[in-house]
Amino acid sequence: MDLQYKSIAELEKLCEDIRKRILEVVSKNGGHLSSTLGATELIVAMHKVFDSKKDPFIFDVSHQSYAHKLLTGRWDEFDTLRQFNGICGYTKPSESEDDYFVAGHSSTSISLGVGAAKAIALKGEQDERIPVVMIGDGSMTAGMVYEALNELGERKYPMVIILNDNEMSISKPIGAVSRMLSSAMASPFYQRFKKTTEAFVDNFGEGARYIAKRMEESLKLVTPGMLFEEMGIDYIGPVDGHNLTQLIEILETAKQLKKPVIIHAQTLKGKGYEIAEGKEEKWHGVGPFDISSGSSSKKSSAKSATQIYTEALLHLCKDNDKIVGATAAMPSGTGLTELIEKYPNRFWDVAIAEQHAVTSMAALAREGFKPFCTIYSTFLQRGYDQVIHDTCLMDLPVVFALDRAGIVGEDGETHQGVFDVSFLRAIPNMTLFAPRDEKSFHQAMAFATEYDHPCSLRYPRGAFLDTEGLPESTKFTLAKSQLLESHEGDILFIGYGNGVGRAYATAKLLDESVSLLDLRFVKPLDTTMLREMVQKHKKWFVFSDTSKMGGVGSALLEFLADEKITDVLVESFEYDDCFITHGNTKVVEESLGILPAQLAKKAEALI
Amino acid sequence: MDLQYKSIAELEKLCEDIRKRILEVVSKNGGHLSSTLGATELIVAMHKVFDSKKDPFIFDVSHQSYAHKLLTGRWDEFDTLRQFNGICGYTKPSESEDDYFVAGHSSTSISLGVGAAKAIALKGEQDERIPVVMIGDGSMTAGMVYEALNELGERKYPMVIILNDNEMSISKPIGAVSRMLSSAMASPFYQRFKKTTEAFVDNFGEGARYIAKRMEESLKLVTPGMLFEEMGIDYIGPVDGHNLTQLIEILETAKQLKKPVIIHAQTLKGKGYEIAEGKEEKWHGVGPFDISSGSSSKKSSAKSATQIYTEALLHLCKDNDKIVGATAAMPSGTGLTELIEKYPNRFWDVAIAEQHAVTSMAALAREGFKPFCTIYSTFLQRGYDQVIHDTCLMDLPVVFALDRAGIVGEDGETHQGVFDVSFLRAIPNMTLFAPRDEKSFHQAMAFATEYDHPCSLRYPRGAFLDTEGLPESTKFTLAKSQLLESHEGDILFIGYGNGVGRAYATAKLLDESVSLLDLRFVKPLDTTMLREMVQKHKKWFVFSDTSKMGGVGSALLEFLADEKITDVLVESFEYDDCFITHGNTKVVEESLGILPAQLAKKAEALI
Repeated sequence: MDLQYKSIAELEKLCEDIRKRILEVVSKNGGHLSSTLGATELIVAMHKVFDSKKDPFIFDVSHQSYAHKLLTGRWDEFDTLRQFNGICGYTKPSESEDDYFVAGHSSTSISLGVGAAKAIALKGEQDERIPVVMIGDGSMTAGMVYEALNELGERKYPMVIILNDNEMSISKPIGAVSRMLSSAMASPFYQRFKKTTEAFVDNFGEGARYIAKRMEESLKLVTPGMLFEEMGIDYIGPVDGHNLTQLIEILETAKQLKKPVIIHAQTLKGKGYEIAEGKEEKWHGVGPFDISSGSSSKKSSAKSATQIYTEALLHLCKDNDKIVGATAAMPSGTGLTELIEKYPNRFWDVAIAEQHAVTSMAALAREGFKPFCTIYSTFLQRGYDQVIHDTCLMDLPVVFALDRAGIVGEDGETHQGVFDVSFLRAIPNMTLFAPRDEKSFHQAMAFATEYDHPCSLRYPRGAFLDTEGLPESTKFTLAKSQLLESHEGDILFIGYGNGVGRAYATAKLLDESVSLLDLRFVKPLDTTMLREMVQKHKKWFVFSDTSKMGGVGSALLEFLADEKITDVLVESFEYDDCFITHGNTKVVEESLGILPAQLAKKAEALI
Repeated sequence: MDLQYKSIAELEKLCEDIRKRILEVVSKNGGHLSSTLGATELIVAMHKVFDSKKDPFIFDVSHQSYAHKLLTGRWDEFDTLRQFNGICGYTKPSESEDDYFVAGHSSTSISLGVGAAKAIALKGEQDERIPVVMIGDGSMTAGMVYEALNELGERKYPMVIILNDNEMSISKPIGAVSRMLSSAMASPFYQRFKKTTEAFVDNFGEGARYIAKRMEESLKLVTPGMLFEEMGIDYIGPVDGHNLTQLIEILETAKQLKKPVIIHAQTLKGKGYEIAEGKEEKWHGVGPFDISSGSSSKKSSAKSATQIYTEALLHLCKDNDKIVGATAAMPSGTGLTELIEKYPNRFWDVAIAEQHAVTSMAALAREGFKPFCTIYSTFLQRGYDQVIHDTCLMDLPVVFALDRAGIVGEDGETHQGVFDVSFLRAIPNMTLFAPRDEKSFHQAMAFATEYDHPCSLRYPRGAFLDTEGLPESTKFTLAKSQLLESHEGDILFIGYGNGVGRAYATAKLLDESVSLLDLRFVKPLDTTMLREMVQKHKKWFVFSDTSKMGGVGSALLEFLADEKITDVLVESFEYDDCFITHGNTKVVEESLGILPAQLAKKAEALI
């Protein structure tokens, strides 16, 4: 949509329409709501002043980019938001040339801006193009941002960074940077400055007071941006992020500066939808809801794995004051909210800072505590080196509780939790296991608490697949699997974690009876049981919500090779080697051919 | 050594002795020199004021901790520095109870300090213990530091952070933070302040000049630490890092403050060894050298893989102005120095900032450039999420050139480059290959340059193993291996990268002739060739300097499983599942049983 010749009044009307459209679709499909509503004027102003056909528009995380999607030819299609084959909930170049980059993980935007700026300089396009970055205050805590600002402040590439400050990330703002942005006036430097001026007034009398006062006022303007100014990046702000006239003026100015500049815009999360305005975590990401009442239209479903995690941890904490834990800005998503409330000295939200989360927990383990480092599978990728270098090398008993392991549904390819077994299994001293249902989850947590080495357990988004009818889970013991069904015949189904439910559902669709093993531990493997299985069953089928490359099947193949066994066929139904798109989990799974009915057919063809 | 009752004169003499001992040993064994010499007084002062038996002494990277080792019962043993079974070049709790944590990768120290402080608070030991962190200015650029400071500034745990500022990291200081520390007086804020005061002087005449001047002076003292003060952390400095009296006083003060405080100490790298004083990269890490002349006593050896990389890249750059590249503070180590000098607009040292290095290069690829992101295998662990989320998800043609892949020798377990195949192979869109010698390296680089997707090549520290006598390497083509020797018989040796040389050396020791395949691509595999090999050879031996779990052998097993082939035995001679210690590479390899003579015996037993 070309906004160049639109008046402010027309643009204000446009913002209203955009908000209406977002509400309409998100209330039906679910999605991110409050930050995208809050960023509407910012995005309209961006499109008024810059051109996403040539200027790289870089949205950090990009969950706030819905208005951008609506302004770039996706108004009608927008009602397919987050549906399979529909509009992605994040920016995606394959969807539109106006989307510069994929995003979904936070704090990558300034690095991307620096790279784009380098390219623009090399191409000699500085007069025609400039990177425009939008980043929320919540994303400012991750180390990547600082690494990028460090180079940007040194090399001073032209770049406009819009800091969308709604005084909250997904949940409450954590840490010194947030505090600095929101209450810069209370900063130690400013306080010290005040003390200095007061001392001067005392020494030099009233004549000096006026001078000191004026100096204080001159300096006040730059105070909130001092961090950036110190790093060599110009700072403008704070400005009202809902005032289009002012925003457009400032963006025009920033565009002309030809150096890096941060515009600190203050916005109201949920702006324009009264029920959500200024609300914290609740309206960040939502399921379908009723617009007029704001109440959720989702029926209550089975207990989620996250809820079980919370209950198990609460239970364990009662008798064990050594248990501590951390989340990286996902207290509600990971189920740690209650723990943090109940044990504020033992559980911490460390902000979006996975590296720091892992390493600080390692130190607590060194001191004899039992940390539960609770992170989504996909976000642990950010703390990978810290798992290796700071945890496993020291052989410290940190528990990595990986939520959202497997397909996460509507959030799509940036959020699927599929690589963890592949990247964690190769780390010495690491133990990997997974529960399959509520009872085994409690048992797995009890094991984790007692176990004196690094370990990681994984569990899915939402509820576990149904395992009703299977024998009850028995106590977790290191490297011990549980044989759930044993039959004559070559076929053995091996399930890992939520894969047990998938194996079970598949088995029920087969004509013949098959044996079923809950692997439990993918590292170390239950070699005793597997040797027995080698004798009895020559066709093994692997069910696990993990990447096939280097995954559970691969671990079994390594075992067989170590044992010099060549007469067992292993067929893995793990995920193929591709990024997995967004959509309803069942629909996505169908597209991958891993619904039980599909797997039953595949298995039958091989039997 | 108890320093509590020693006089300043005695401590100064001790510093002299420590420096002598360090020089003596490092000139013989090689090791880190200039930063450890520079940190001598700081460490002596730490031991005078704090107690490493109870206070967590946390050395960032810990290459500067030699004086600490000498002061904690390792004076005599110190001549085994970096030798197999000898003293480790980094802190290591299994070596001494005075070593709090393993380190080797940079910028973990403040996170560890935060974790330790949380533990101390929970145990109620605040009156007896306090974490003491030493971090160099070079380590201040990595994002982890900022993540940790963010929480520390918020929660204000008592902690003493000694910022050892020698105005250089391993190489020249890069980035805004360095600049800020070393020339805070030129900062934009300070400049703005000066302008403000000047304006006041203009308006209010000479009477105001004195007041303004005095205010300026008062403020000057806090200027270099403004970043920290802003984050809520007290700042003291800059102080002379070689003045023991002053250091001890300040540390005593800091100890009493019961809040986080940064002491900014300025030191001279190489202090006490005139030849190295103030020298940059050259004296950071050294091989054996002659103390009186400073000249290296190492004989010149075969051309290193790094040198070949540099030559190949220089050659490619001549005709291709799309090639760009980055290193994260390792210009000399990775061989990029010449490239940065020759093409300062196309090659960048982005400081210790692997995350930013990867993501900014991804943006350059998005703009049509061909980035060579040049990183040690072990340090790419820091940019893992960025490889997945910002590079492979976008299917961008970034080349990850992984130096120091395999055993790195004396640096030991924190630096071994053994996990890369395991953690990269599972990423969709990623291609993995490896050269085996100089010619194939040039060919691999030519392939990488033309290839339009993410890819990664790996090569060893030092020279490739000898492959003299093998057929010459042919052009690199996607997913094509090269069959080097073909014989009747069941045995097939499969080499990957430097593993080809190992396979070849092993083969020469066997009585019977064996076939030899240079795999070249571990992803995607050369399925055509492998199918042919399945027909001809039933015993495959895998040679690769990679972790066995999820490694090259695992990829071959997955191929065989996919093909439903059960009559081929795969025996992998990759690294077992353990962290690999430090020492001369040959000695370490011997301890792992992977020298050709040892492998020949193992192979014979299996043939």
